[in-house]
Amino acid sequence: MSELRQDPITKEWVIIATDRARRPHEFRSRERGSEVPSSSAKACPFCPGNERMTPNEVAAYRNGNKDGPGWWVRVMPNRFPALTPESSDGRGDDPFFRFMPGVGRHEVIIETPEHNAPFALLPDSQAEEVVLMYRERYLALRDDRAVKAVILFKNKGESAGTSLEHPHAQIVGTPVVPQHIRETYAVTTRYYDDTGRCIYCDLVERECKAKYRIVFESDEFVAFHPFASRSPFETWIAPKRHAASFGQISAESAKHFALALKAVLSKIYRHLNDPDYNFVFHSAPIEDENKPYFLWHVRVIPRLTTVAGFEIGSGMFINTALPEETAAYLNERP
Amino acid sequence: MSELRQDPITKEWVIIATDRARRPHEFRSRERGSEVPSSSAKACPFCPGNERMTPNEVAAYRNGNKDGPGWWVRVMPNRFPALTPESSDGRGDDPFFRFMPGVGRHEVIIETPEHNAPFALLPDSQAEEVVLMYRERYLALRDDRAVKAVILFKNKGESAGTSLEHPHAQIVGTPVVPQHIRETYAVTTRYYDDTGRCIYCDLVERECKAKYRIVFESDEFVAFHPFASRSPFETWIAPKRHAASFGQISAESAKHFALALKAVLSKIYRHLNDPDYNFVFHSAPIEDENKPYFLWHVRVIPRLTTVAGFEIGSGMFINTALPEETAAYLNERP
Repeated sequence: MSELRQDPITKEWVIIATDRARRPHEFRSRERGSEVPSSSAKACPFCPGNERMTPNEVAAYRNGNKDGPGWWVRVMPNRFPALTPESSDGRGDDPFFRFMPGVGRHEVIIETPEHNAPFALLPDSQAEEVVLMYRERYLALRDDRAVKAVILFKNKGESAGTSLEHPHAQIVGTPVVPQHIRETYAVTTRYYDDTGRCIYCDLVERECKAKYRIVFESDEFVAFHPFASRSPFETWIAPKRHAASFGQISAESAKHFALALKAVLSKIYRHLNDPDYNFVFHSAPIEDENKPYFLWHVRVIPRLTTVAGFEIGSGMFINTALPEETAAYLNERP
Repeated sequence: MSELRQDPITKEWVIIATDRARRPHEFRSRERGSEVPSSSAKACPFCPGNERMTPNEVAAYRNGNKDGPGWWVRVMPNRFPALTPESSDGRGDDPFFRFMPGVGRHEVIIETPEHNAPFALLPDSQAEEVVLMYRERYLALRDDRAVKAVILFKNKGESAGTSLEHPHAQIVGTPVVPQHIRETYAVTTRYYDDTGRCIYCDLVERECKAKYRIVFESDEFVAFHPFASRSPFETWIAPKRHAASFGQISAESAKHFALALKAVLSKIYRHLNDPDYNFVFHSAPIEDENKPYFLWHVRVIPRLTTVAGFEIGSGMFINTALPEETAAYLNERP
């Protein structure tokens, strides 16, 4: 199983994923042109008929038998998990070399039986089914007592960190609350103590009033390019009514959210020519779900530029586009 | 000039670099195979004879006239600067939409007249000259009253964020102290108040004692793969004696440091087949240079893996290699 190690200064935990580790010499740069081609449908472990190529499924919306074809959404543990549900107690408490076992959960959600059907182009009903499954697995991981925070995300395309073309998302339950969420909480708590309000809700309200960075709006959800976007076309999708965790969403609202997510991804797909992207669900840690000072939301990050030395060193991002302009561009007719 | 905007929750400033901005439609993904080839020596603005293709130099080690050939290290303002030295006062203080003008400095340091000579393969004397120029420019930017922190870094290769092949580093003077440095300071200050010691110096001492993550050591410097490395082959180079800022290094020690940096980059070059990488100098903010609780150091980050949704969302990194093993690998004979 993997090991978590803590940076003694930032206090951030790093997952040393030995199960998916490569030997040092395997990191040697490949000669140009020798890249492995991305998976074709035939060899794709996520395509119907190839279910035996993956670990056993833990959930599915399907006809037919478990681990056979007939599903339209399917979930199984990641074959190369960053964290695993085995119980283990070994911890090291030297503050300079603090470590703990990589206990947690790591699952893959296959979003469609079709190898080449991006989320942006799914039928509405299928997009809804996918988000209902996000919700189901979020709730399942949240109920694992070892899990302190749930991170649901998608890597689409090689520059976003995946070589598997078949549309899928991932969900990870971590045994610690990530430090940068703690730091966010210090700010949101202070704001709540000062004003009695959720800073995220106030931010969303201000963006709605400002109007010109909005790229989508429905009764329940709004999407915008934030004033201080860190990268071009960064898009936040947030509920209009306060809820700290995605785990609190109703099935009905989950369907509304699916349409909001699809609308945003589809604008990006059309206007940016199907770029690689990540999206990530930001939710309160499990223990903070009932606190009134965090708003769950999703950030979509098209991978259009490269994070370089300045960003790595300073934590400050250089964004080469104005969010007002990128929002206006997405709002043009395609 | 560019604009700084503050994220109201993380408090981190983002540089909206309108001078280097692209129009929204220019972000459309290119068709595969249509990538622009990297610069050849003929069209390279950093090659001798092409000095007119760059802004006027601000410093050089050279024979011959300013802005002509004959130099062996040459520095000029970045042609597409993230920050510029113009004075300007416009600030917006609405806490949700805080902004300030992009005042600061942004220079490029050309490290050799030779188009294809990576730092790892420079003659020792040239490596020393390069680091002496790093020091000279660090001190120059530090003396600009608008500058609160100096970030010196290198992007090598496309996946590290540069399309210019000719070896160069960059140096940026920012008008604010980056928030994540402030957060680091909270920890190091607490540690100093508790123990009377610098936490970084203690960390370096502990890594030296542990021994098996060390990849280079000289009288004045040590390099190691930290216990909680965030990515494979991440390497820190640190002085053995306390100094908070690179700006405090003597010319003599700068030469020793040049050899340490070259030794590390050369091990990476040989064992990993010339990978793309970034390095970044971490130094105290100008106002904190005389405080006893920060140790300047350099982090070298080979770009061997891709930061994906999990890292972006959680701030936790998944490292697929053990630092003990990567250090041992770099210590093998090539």
